[in-house]
Amino acid sequence: MKKIIMGMIGGGIGAFIGDAHRRASRICNDFELVGGVFDIDYEKSKVFAAKEGISLDRCYKSVDALIKAELALPKNERMEVVAIVTPNDLHYPFAKKLLSGGFHLVCEKPMTLTVKEALDLEKLVAKTKKTFALTHTYTGYPMVRQMRDLISKGVLGTIQRIDAQYYQGWINSVIHGTGSRITGIWRLDPKHAGVSSCMGDIGVHAFNLIEYTTGLEVKEVLSDLNPVKDGIKLDLDGTVMIRFSKTLKGVIRASQICAGLENDILISVYGSKASLRWGQENPNYLYLFSDSEPTKIFKPAHGYNVKLAEEGHTMPAGHPEGIYEALANIYKGTAKSIRKEKFNPGEFPTVHDGVRGMKFIHAVINSNAKGNVWMKV
Amino acid sequence: MKKIIMGMIGGGIGAFIGDAHRRASRICNDFELVGGVFDIDYEKSKVFAAKEGISLDRCYKSVDALIKAELALPKNERMEVVAIVTPNDLHYPFAKKLLSGGFHLVCEKPMTLTVKEALDLEKLVAKTKKTFALTHTYTGYPMVRQMRDLISKGVLGTIQRIDAQYYQGWINSVIHGTGSRITGIWRLDPKHAGVSSCMGDIGVHAFNLIEYTTGLEVKEVLSDLNPVKDGIKLDLDGTVMIRFSKTLKGVIRASQICAGLENDILISVYGSKASLRWGQENPNYLYLFSDSEPTKIFKPAHGYNVKLAEEGHTMPAGHPEGIYEALANIYKGTAKSIRKEKFNPGEFPTVHDGVRGMKFIHAVINSNAKGNVWMKV
Amino acid sequence: MKKIIMGMIGGGIGAFIGDAHRRASRICNDFELVGGVFDIDYEKSKVFAAKEGISLDRCYKSVDALIKAELALPKNERMEVVAIVTPNDLHYPFAKKLLSGGFHLVCEKPMTLTVKEALDLEKLVAKTKKTFALTHTYTGYPMVRQMRDLISKGVLGTIQRIDAQYYQGWINSVIHGTGSRITGIWRLDPKHAGVSSCMGDIGVHAFNLIEYTTGLEVKEVLSDLNPVKDGIKLDLDGTVMIRFSKTLKGVIRASQICAGLENDILISVYGSKASLRWGQENPNYLYLFSDSEPTKIFKPAHGYNVKLAEEGHTMPAGHPEGIYEALANIYKGTAKSIRKEKFNPGEFPTVHDGVRGMKFIHAVINSNAKGNVWMKV
Amino acid sequence: MKKIIMGMIGGGIGAFIGDAHRRASRICNDFELVGGVFDIDYEKSKVFAAKEGISLDRCYKSVDALIKAELALPKNERMEVVAIVTPNDLHYPFAKKLLSGGFHLVCEKPMTLTVKEALDLEKLVAKTKKTFALTHTYTGYPMVRQMRDLISKGVLGTIQRIDAQYYQGWINSVIHGTGSRITGIWRLDPKHAGVSSCMGDIGVHAFNLIEYTTGLEVKEVLSDLNPVKDGIKLDLDGTVMIRFSKTLKGVIRASQICAGLENDILISVYGSKASLRWGQENPNYLYLFSDSEPTKIFKPAHGYNVKLAEEGHTMPAGHPEGIYEALANIYKGTAKSIRKEKFNPGEFPTVHDGVRGMKFIHAVINSNAKGNVWMKV
Repeated sequence: MKKIIMGMIGGGIGAFIGDAHRRASRICNDFELVGGVFDIDYEKSKVFAAKEGISLDRCYKSVDALIKAELALPKNERMEVVAIVTPNDLHYPFAKKLLSGGFHLVCEKPMTLTVKEALDLEKLVAKTKKTFALTHTYTGYPMVRQMRDLISKGVLGTIQRIDAQYYQGWINSVIHGTGSRITGIWRLDPKHAGVSSCMGDIGVHAFNLIEYTTGLEVKEVLSDLNPVKDGIKLDLDGTVMIRFSKTLKGVIRASQICAGLENDILISVYGSKASLRWGQENPNYLYLFSDSEPTKIFKPAHGYNVKLAEEGHTMPAGHPEGIYEALANIYKGTAKSIRKEKFNPGEFPTVHDGVRGMKFIHAVINSNAKGNVWMKV
Repeated sequence: MKKIIMGMIGGGIGAFIGDAHRRASRICNDFELVGGVFDIDYEKSKVFAAKEGISLDRCYKSVDALIKAELALPKNERMEVVAIVTPNDLHYPFAKKLLSGGFHLVCEKPMTLTVKEALDLEKLVAKTKKTFALTHTYTGYPMVRQMRDLISKGVLGTIQRIDAQYYQGWINSVIHGTGSRITGIWRLDPKHAGVSSCMGDIGVHAFNLIEYTTGLEVKEVLSDLNPVKDGIKLDLDGTVMIRFSKTLKGVIRASQICAGLENDILISVYGSKASLRWGQENPNYLYLFSDSEPTKIFKPAHGYNVKLAEEGHTMPAGHPEGIYEALANIYKGTAKSIRKEKFNPGEFPTVHDGVRGMKFIHAVINSNAKGNVWMKV
Repeated sequence: MKKIIMGMIGGGIGAFIGDAHRRASRICNDFELVGGVFDIDYEKSKVFAAKEGISLDRCYKSVDALIKAELALPKNERMEVVAIVTPNDLHYPFAKKLLSGGFHLVCEKPMTLTVKEALDLEKLVAKTKKTFALTHTYTGYPMVRQMRDLISKGVLGTIQRIDAQYYQGWINSVIHGTGSRITGIWRLDPKHAGVSSCMGDIGVHAFNLIEYTTGLEVKEVLSDLNPVKDGIKLDLDGTVMIRFSKTLKGVIRASQICAGLENDILISVYGSKASLRWGQENPNYLYLFSDSEPTKIFKPAHGYNVKLAEEGHTMPAGHPEGIYEALANIYKGTAKSIRKEKFNPGEFPTVHDGVRGMKFIHAVINSNAKGNVWMKV
Repeated sequence: MKKIIMGMIGGGIGAFIGDAHRRASRICNDFELVGGVFDIDYEKSKVFAAKEGISLDRCYKSVDALIKAELALPKNERMEVVAIVTPNDLHYPFAKKLLSGGFHLVCEKPMTLTVKEALDLEKLVAKTKKTFALTHTYTGYPMVRQMRDLISKGVLGTIQRIDAQYYQGWINSVIHGTGSRITGIWRLDPKHAGVSSCMGDIGVHAFNLIEYTTGLEVKEVLSDLNPVKDGIKLDLDGTVMIRFSKTLKGVIRASQICAGLENDILISVYGSKASLRWGQENPNYLYLFSDSEPTKIFKPAHGYNVKLAEEGHTMPAGHPEGIYEALANIYKGTAKSIRKEKFNPGEFPTVHDGVRGMKFIHAVINSNAKGNVWMKV
């Protein structure tokens, strides 16, 4: 089958997330990366293209140049989809231009800097009818998809409590000057990161996992955020109370300063009949707890899973797949959408998830700024 | 060595917590249970005493009768300590009488129904100079004591975030009528349980573990509680934001309706240098995370532990000890105090921990009642 | 209920296993320890008795003295049961005398030094009709009992493979002179330990767990043992192939020199329909694997367990119980037998288990000595 | 950088291992698959090529046809490396032809059917100086490489015992007719699988992991194998005692009929100072046990790891990578070798590992056939 021709904005040398997107696109094998704007610095961009074996002809100086040149190509040769993997502040202007230019998009999160921008993109996607995939990568894990399916089938009964966590430690060594990692420091700069560091970068993943797995919408939030150290301008840590209805409440906890933790994402959904728990660091285990039966562990590559979960794990049972395969599953869904094949609504997060995420981030920031009061999402 | 003569109030047939206290007192081997008031119903109390091999002469009709009769005995024959394991509402009146009567006390938590009662007991303990042990049993686990020691030695650096959880499921089947367990229903009745179910019964344990392990005091709380089901008068679930200082914040999460969970207590303390995590269901594992070194697991019965942790685990490494041994460790510390032997401040929780707990419970209830505002603890 | 009057041989100061027996007898609360011969050195024995609050009148100079004096007491005052917790070489002579004297016995394993002695004791137990409990303590864990029950009910189908492991590390530091632990060195001395160190001390536990959980008998063994270091006279490490029938085979692996391991016991039984796995260091988890269903974790204190498992765990679910409670469960079964109450065959290991164990140990030693050939058990 | 032009033999529709190789080659991004012989049935081969977007011009009828046509192409256009992913019996004849034709090879294991064939290939590789990579995929996991490095640095002291396990369950449902999986049944047919099923398919992986991580050679084996069910011609289960020297012994355990298990590979190496344990199902955890220190868990993406381990994990810590990335690491090393870049001896298993594997398999089969006697490897 013919590959979908892909471009990329950002993701040059040293950018792990760009590399992740390229790997994922190769794993799912539906895309061919032919060019892009890999770095603001054109020289660096060219060095990168050469290293990757990408033709310098399609290594562009700017997004505008890319759009112009690609649109000049015959339709069956030009880029169909572009992946945006820049710092946060550039997502919106580039997404807007590219959508308007007729390109499908894969975009990193958080989708924009403001809710207004997010709503604007949502309108533009509706208008252009282009595929827009937002890479909330964790939704690509087979057991997250299985969790969503079990909940949708009512296995938990009435949901009574939801608790999601995203605890990381890497910024801890950045702020204390003890770590060697220096990439990503733009995350602490409001100009590039937007209004939030912790909630915008990782809290929003926990939020997205909740809405993805349960199909419910968080209605209100009350947050208490912590910049942790003098001189830090954004939140590095926080707790967010969440409410879905009068009797369904929960909490999102996120922190970037949990020394020594890696990527400790955990989501638990507690129902009247049973509960489910999934953690990212051992992503192939999904725990179902119930009062009357032994705890059950669901794993990929078994007949008891829903089809969408099964399709996302290609090795026989017991051969762990990881984060690249999760992202590849999202690319696979995106490819289906671009090719107008049938696909499941859970196969990739959309511009609407991006709008929800931006509303969440801003509600959380506002709640904290106004003295820890309830804010609508 | 002569055993300390012990009595018990409550803890008759079917009361697991009374049985736990008796077992613990036998494990540590410093006590001899000689009598008590095991049930409000005197006939039941006698049936129980007979079954346990306790002399009916010292199976009393009431606490008043017990006090009168025991004080009439020669000093070396009379009860020296009494364990109070009744429903919450009876802790205070009985504790007051017994302290005034000159008895040392072991008391279940929450210590009283009100903060005023708690302060009153604190004064009485100061005045009578009696030993008062509050059974926050989880502080008896060797690895909790090791955690406290590592933190006190500065292994974590500056503490940056604290997150404690106590999630249970057994009340879920009670409220939905699906479980067989019916003991403990007094916990849902404000008359016996006081102002809170979830926070009073289990949230306070999480709170206590925080103050025990870190030596810090929670200054303020903001809570959002959930009775979960119509007709339930008390909180069964809730989230409590906590603040220690301007830059040290955290969260306590507690719930009694997490279907299928057992006793999922987890405490994580995140510092500028390293972090510690301990969970109750595998209590012999203490995790130390740091940026620059492999994760470490501390276990009991090793030379690298502090003496207090080591003394609390008597089997060679790899032979798990559990909750009874944790409670026995608290009884052991209580015995040392009664015998005026040297002991470590962490060997048993005191009346001051009870005061802190009551302040916490009431602050949490008030915060929720007033619309989720910050309340001083 | 009246306590069973108990004596003890061995178990004086510094002997952790004697302390374990005493604790267990107190936990189950059916026994009262009144005297014994706690040390070969009478003076040390008296010091110990005084410390424990045991009357010096019943702290005897020798087993003979104990028997004579106790038999002189009125029947309702004399010791009914004696626990033998000495080094291995003393089990047989003392057991023989005590059984002949009319005492019930609790005996540590390995039961004797030779198969002949073991068979002799078996005859004597049959003749005297006394209760004889051998403390293969791990059979007292509720989830081991649940495992036995699930297998007996056919949940696994036809058993196809059995694999049991007992890996320890503490002797490693003894032989390399790096550890502080010096108790137990008699284990390396053939005079006290018998023909084997590793297989006699711990391999036999793995063997016993296999026969206990499956109800099957190991027919033949082929072993390869390793003293590991020059100058060591006994096996410290070994692998034992086992056969039950032409198509059912398996392996027992045991080692005392696995640096840094604690008490890593693991038993897996693989059947045509499903498999079960239990590990001692987290004894409250029993894993059931099957092809067509999610993995299940059985835990204590749930209605889905067999009665015998449930009775052995008294705390509500999620409060871990450990090794002392396991041993207490064996003491509880022993008490039922002594009192001629109804009990389940699985409630305590018997003299027959001791005979099986001795046959196993000797077959393993002989197989190795003869050049790794098959030996009948 | 220019991609290495690759062909593939086998791996057509429904062959998961062929798909794994293709994915891995795309992940490491050094290869371009341009053609091959994907199926014995040429029509099926073409269907597959079309589906994969591979030019039908280079979809060949036979290996001979491939060799002839490719050699006719200009050197910079022709295939440089060919991956052989057929059933076992075809590895040798195809490898021989392709090596002789001047192609580098990636070959699935077991390398050949006989030791003679293996030695023959080894000579041919020496003569042709081509790169020959044998896909013992598990050696591609970063933590396996870290384990090798820690051992080579002497962290364990003198090695005292080695225990490796590979337990699977999928063939259990095949032999009992309860599973849906029917691929791989050639594994039970001596014509295609060779002399062994269990030891040839998975036991040899355990063997390879031992020699890979320790750098030691297994000198002798004594095996007891089990076909488990009447009518099965090959071993499905077995235990293999192994000896390295007079005082270093161990065991390999492998089984394909462990109902409900997935891919339960575990390797433990016990030394005089410390021990290491790694399991495949959570491949990002490497445990170091020592007597005097807390247990340590090594994980990928940390500065404390050796460079080779670090290069094999490209995501930040806490983002699990899995089996595809492990295989991609081996492809990466193969690419370095083909390009004559500097590489580490541990970066991919070689034809010599294949020779060792064949010697192991045949020694194991012979030991069993001759009545469980020691056989040299």
